[in-house]
Amino acid sequence: MTTSARGDRSSLRTKRTILRRKPERGAHNFETIASILDEALYCHIGSVAEGQPFVVPTGYGRDGRTLYIHGSAASRMLKSLSSGIPVCVTVTLLDGLVLARSAFRHSMNYRSVMIFGVARKVAGEEKLRGLKVITEHMARGRWADARPPTRQELKATAVLRLDIDEASAKIRSGPPLVDKEDRGLPVWAGVLPFALVPGQPVPDPQLPPEVKLPAYLAAYRRPQGHRRA
Amino acid sequence: MTTSARGDRSSLRTKRTILRRKPERGAHNFETIASILDEALYCHIGSVAEGQPFVVPTGYGRDGRTLYIHGSAASRMLKSLSSGIPVCVTVTLLDGLVLARSAFRHSMNYRSVMIFGVARKVAGEEKLRGLKVITEHMARGRWADARPPTRQELKATAVLRLDIDEASAKIRSGPPLVDKEDRGLPVWAGVLPFALVPGQPVPDPQLPPEVKLPAYLAAYRRPQGHRRA
Repeated sequence: MTTSARGDRSSLRTKRTILRRKPERGAHNFETIASILDEALYCHIGSVAEGQPFVVPTGYGRDGRTLYIHGSAASRMLKSLSSGIPVCVTVTLLDGLVLARSAFRHSMNYRSVMIFGVARKVAGEEKLRGLKVITEHMARGRWADARPPTRQELKATAVLRLDIDEASAKIRSGPPLVDKEDRGLPVWAGVLPFALVPGQPVPDPQLPPEVKLPAYLAAYRRPQGHRRA
Repeated sequence: MTTSARGDRSSLRTKRTILRRKPERGAHNFETIASILDEALYCHIGSVAEGQPFVVPTGYGRDGRTLYIHGSAASRMLKSLSSGIPVCVTVTLLDGLVLARSAFRHSMNYRSVMIFGVARKVAGEEKLRGLKVITEHMARGRWADARPPTRQELKATAVLRLDIDEASAKIRSGPPLVDKEDRGLPVWAGVLPFALVPGQPVPDPQLPPEVKLPAYLAAYRRPQGHRRA
């Protein structure tokens, strides 16, 4: 937390990612950031057009220090930006509602990551690699199973690349804060946990019955690191 | 979908919220938008500072056609904006991963809302009302239970108001698309459903044992409208 992003490749701290508010909740180390990115399923990508912010949910995947983002959702901003546009990509996992004795101390337990940088469209081999990373992020094992994209399909897809150079994580966990004078209040306090949970796979009604559910879906779970109550 | 936001109070369609991509997934009617806002627990608020987008997750609540947003998360942008700033507030519910026979047709089932407008800090009675709306959004019944904010606590909290005048919803549901030539492929296809699910409430370790879990938490569920497989 006190090293600079410039001197230490494992810290992604810069002027923009300094955590001004509640810095005790923040982290700039790459492992924490990566674990949140790997567990979550979608991101919100923020961009600016004529002074107006746009925030769009979309799929992504991580390959080392590169984030690949499914670009179709960002098509509005992609029109004129082969040169790249400044973005803020935010990924959030809600872990629980924090119900305190006082209204003021209500909060949420969460893990979030913000990445700043310039998103650029990729092409050729890297586009195919980006699509693989995004598909594998949904379900590991899926890329080898699904029919690969044709040249035509590749053309119709946009993949953005964002380097994870300037990023921060923010985490709140644990029970509600309680002010001394509230300790005796007869108000239930604690955490109502939340998690994004997979259900039973629903086969496509057109699927022939002999096509069985693959093992990587039967045993599906998200990679989990750093989760705390 | 063909009426203008100006003539019809139940449609929130404007130039910015026209759905250019896959308009068949879009909706501008208020009831659909409200149902998504009421079910979700947090939003991502996008703003611009010196040309750079910022996207921050935070809590909110809806009161009719007004969104109240917990302002502390937005403190960086709140410093100099008693006059209000242009924002895009996006709320997303992930309903499932759409696993198609071809990599190209992979998608997600989701319901999302984008609201454009100018967010303004509120004060006095409206601030208290906003906090009530945000707290009740977390758990209906909570406001009457928790200790109300003191004058000092109110001062330390920021509440933003955003009118829901210019908004759109986007929804994808149902099985994966399949191209004619892929129908016979021996690749499992279907939807892996996801939902943000509450777990068992975890009492604060400091809570006296005689303080029991209130009924509104024992029977906790999110309001659900418009959910489709």
